[in-house]
Amino acid sequence: MQSTSLALHTDKYQINMMYAHWVNGSHQRKAVFEAYFRKLPFGNGYAVFAGLERIVNYIANLRFTEEDIRYLSEQEEKYDPMFMEALRQFKFGGTVHSMKEGALVFPNEPLVRVEGTIMETQLVETALLNFMNYQTLIATKASRIKQVASDDTLLEFGTRRAQEADAAIWGARAAYVAGFDATSNMLAGEHFGIPTKGTHAHSWVQTFMTEQEAFDVYAKVLPDQVTLLVDTFDTLESGVPHAIRTAKMLESQGKRMNAIRLDSGDLAYLSIQAREMLDAEGLDYVQIVASNDLDENTIFNLKAQGARIDVWGVGTQLITASDQPSLGGVYKLVEREVDGEMLPTIKISGNPEKVSTPGKKDVYRIVDKKKGRAVADYISFPDEERPRNGKRLKLFNPLHPYMKKYVENYEAVPMLEPIFINGQKVYELPELDEIRAYHTSQLKLFWPEYLRKLNPEIYRVNLSEKVWELKQKLIDSYMQPEVEEKE
Amino acid sequence: MQSTSLALHTDKYQINMMYAHWVNGSHQRKAVFEAYFRKLPFGNGYAVFAGLERIVNYIANLRFTEEDIRYLSEQEEKYDPMFMEALRQFKFGGTVHSMKEGALVFPNEPLVRVEGTIMETQLVETALLNFMNYQTLIATKASRIKQVASDDTLLEFGTRRAQEADAAIWGARAAYVAGFDATSNMLAGEHFGIPTKGTHAHSWVQTFMTEQEAFDVYAKVLPDQVTLLVDTFDTLESGVPHAIRTAKMLESQGKRMNAIRLDSGDLAYLSIQAREMLDAEGLDYVQIVASNDLDENTIFNLKAQGARIDVWGVGTQLITASDQPSLGGVYKLVEREVDGEMLPTIKISGNPEKVSTPGKKDVYRIVDKKKGRAVADYISFPDEERPRNGKRLKLFNPLHPYMKKYVENYEAVPMLEPIFINGQKVYELPELDEIRAYHTSQLKLFWPEYLRKLNPEIYRVNLSEKVWELKQKLIDSYMQPEVEEKE
Repeated sequence: MQSTSLALHTDKYQINMMYAHWVNGSHQRKAVFEAYFRKLPFGNGYAVFAGLERIVNYIANLRFTEEDIRYLSEQEEKYDPMFMEALRQFKFGGTVHSMKEGALVFPNEPLVRVEGTIMETQLVETALLNFMNYQTLIATKASRIKQVASDDTLLEFGTRRAQEADAAIWGARAAYVAGFDATSNMLAGEHFGIPTKGTHAHSWVQTFMTEQEAFDVYAKVLPDQVTLLVDTFDTLESGVPHAIRTAKMLESQGKRMNAIRLDSGDLAYLSIQAREMLDAEGLDYVQIVASNDLDENTIFNLKAQGARIDVWGVGTQLITASDQPSLGGVYKLVEREVDGEMLPTIKISGNPEKVSTPGKKDVYRIVDKKKGRAVADYISFPDEERPRNGKRLKLFNPLHPYMKKYVENYEAVPMLEPIFINGQKVYELPELDEIRAYHTSQLKLFWPEYLRKLNPEIYRVNLSEKVWELKQKLIDSYMQPEVEEKE
Repeated sequence: MQSTSLALHTDKYQINMMYAHWVNGSHQRKAVFEAYFRKLPFGNGYAVFAGLERIVNYIANLRFTEEDIRYLSEQEEKYDPMFMEALRQFKFGGTVHSMKEGALVFPNEPLVRVEGTIMETQLVETALLNFMNYQTLIATKASRIKQVASDDTLLEFGTRRAQEADAAIWGARAAYVAGFDATSNMLAGEHFGIPTKGTHAHSWVQTFMTEQEAFDVYAKVLPDQVTLLVDTFDTLESGVPHAIRTAKMLESQGKRMNAIRLDSGDLAYLSIQAREMLDAEGLDYVQIVASNDLDENTIFNLKAQGARIDVWGVGTQLITASDQPSLGGVYKLVEREVDGEMLPTIKISGNPEKVSTPGKKDVYRIVDKKKGRAVADYISFPDEERPRNGKRLKLFNPLHPYMKKYVENYEAVPMLEPIFINGQKVYELPELDEIRAYHTSQLKLFWPEYLRKLNPEIYRVNLSEKVWELKQKLIDSYMQPEVEEKE
């Protein structure tokens, strides 16, 4: 899935900063960046991390082609030719840690941590965020739909309304990670091994003189895969009766029709009526597939109305995350090298929630050993004593000091996996089904209160006392402008 | 920009229908499909057509690779190996007409018309809609922003929040088509020749001991391209004063600073204050760039509040079209071959606005010769007499018969250009700046009432009497189920 060079899939300011550091001689200084989001999408209680496979392939193949170099040489900035040579030699030589795909993740915890020279860590920001933001967004949306659909089959049908080809393909993958069963997109099937599903369109019916002929021909050609779209003319008057005749024809050959598909109208009413009509003919094994602008809310409501739908085809609303089509993931500098020493840094903002948390950090998921459920995520510095069973851990919310809690009998699961160490890939990308299974196991770690789609409980993400104290210290230092001015 | 094979960037049901037609022997039958949308996005009065370049490259390169064939052979459908051979030989041999990129387009008029065998016309549906829907959506959103920003400079900054890489790149192109001046995405710059813009991030400032040092180093390295981000610590207390010092330093070298950039806080207040501070120092030539979740509404309001902003950096809201992240373009069969003859066909629906208009159709833009403005679009069959100057033309709304109008002194501009004829590309893709110029000339054809962002006048799209009569006839025929049943 990585074909053309993506080195220039970045914002111009990254190139300008790389160049300015290079001219300034500061490009080899070390830096640590962390990618995270500040707010969960859709009012959900968690997000589902995705995008790592794409990020790994991007970083592993990160080279400037001759075409890229030529293009940059023609820019109005007139970069020094020696800088072009530096780009020609460029390889990512940094260290990356990341959440695993399928992990449940929360606001303000590092999802991807990138360490290296200022040049390489800066370059990858844009693409890394682009991939992480979109795929995490879609996996999260898909997970919400999965929570509602429960054991019903979920099909991803969004390609024609997706925001261009990559969104269709990587979105199909993200949906599969979070519990969808198949996609209609064949390229996603080919590249990722996702099961594919699909039958016929209205145009199939329209190319025949009658709906019955259209159904029968289809059933003859693909007798083991027959799902008939029944709403080209009139669902209950025409489509379902014709589909029943085709099913009977198949029965006479010892075959069983898979399903009928409803794609318009009142899906609750039509599915109940169609179910009755099918059952009355002994076709209780024929499933009902529904589609038409579905999302977690329509599915929830249709189920509440007693709709008899077995399989849900979800398109536009999922693939564009239409109620919130972007995740605001950011990539912030947390440490940088000064005179050979790594120093934490902070980004101040007029919006308090936008103030970054300084220092390179680890994330642990604290799991109650007796209950087998996650209690909180815990963020600490790598040089702090690692939380471990038996060592009493203080979980506190510094903004609301009465909200503190001690845990003792817990497992502290490190969430950030090493992916690249000094440019070497050390992480074996898991198979997609392994990622799906990991996602399922992650869901089981959480009380249902955190998972419900409406007004979920807020899962705690706590800073260690050291992290909190450093953050306060740096905020204080920026409150005294003279500190900054001393030159 | 076309690298990997996109033949499988399609829905599975297309492959299944192709196969079923192939087995049935009906795959060489001719069909005509038209792509259109039913509803304008964002409550806008028009859409801006885009996506053609991508569609042309897709169709011209449409081949099944050996990898594709292998993948399909392993599908559960167990396609006949001879069908695989047919796919191996497949080339698009059909005829395509399309609106030109940059055209103003309206609901329920064919934007792309595809004629050919049922196999090839069906295969291309999914990708064609995917490209057309997204790029037209973003061009339309960008055009709304351009209407509000008027002659201010507009920069596309959305890559990190775009829905994956293709959206970032093709979205940047669509924005440029509709009047944006530059993008931050370097790959879009490289591939399409769009001007690129960008300066530095907060992290640039954070890697230095002081903001002043960060500004000065940047200005030394790129003295002709200095735009300084002034909100890392405190915009008016720290950022602007430091930027002023850097500007003075540049002046002492005979250089002029380009701009400062505001990226948070109250942009109206900050820009007015910053303008005053700059002007007081004789830096009236230093521009103010603003960004931070902007769209046509925030820009409109900021201008109304007297904000002193010269350049607008627009990201997330544009690149995801966040208030309506999909265009519901459809691709409907309008004619199919029956016994060697092309017959019109219709898709009925419980929703009246979803009933398709049968028959292969042309679109003319009727331009009043005296006023030089578009009066209506006129849809007729190719075998009807072509509307031409002097020939009185009846424009009527069949649902509201009192809304009729005759025009005589007009030019009838054919809107659908031939792109492929029997598989041969006959259309020379225009340069991007030519497309931009065409878009501008299109805008001039319309009265401002159609172009305003809130409650625009509805532009008329009229059917010829023949088209209207055929549609009624086919609707009537489907009201009599026995017609359909006569086998």
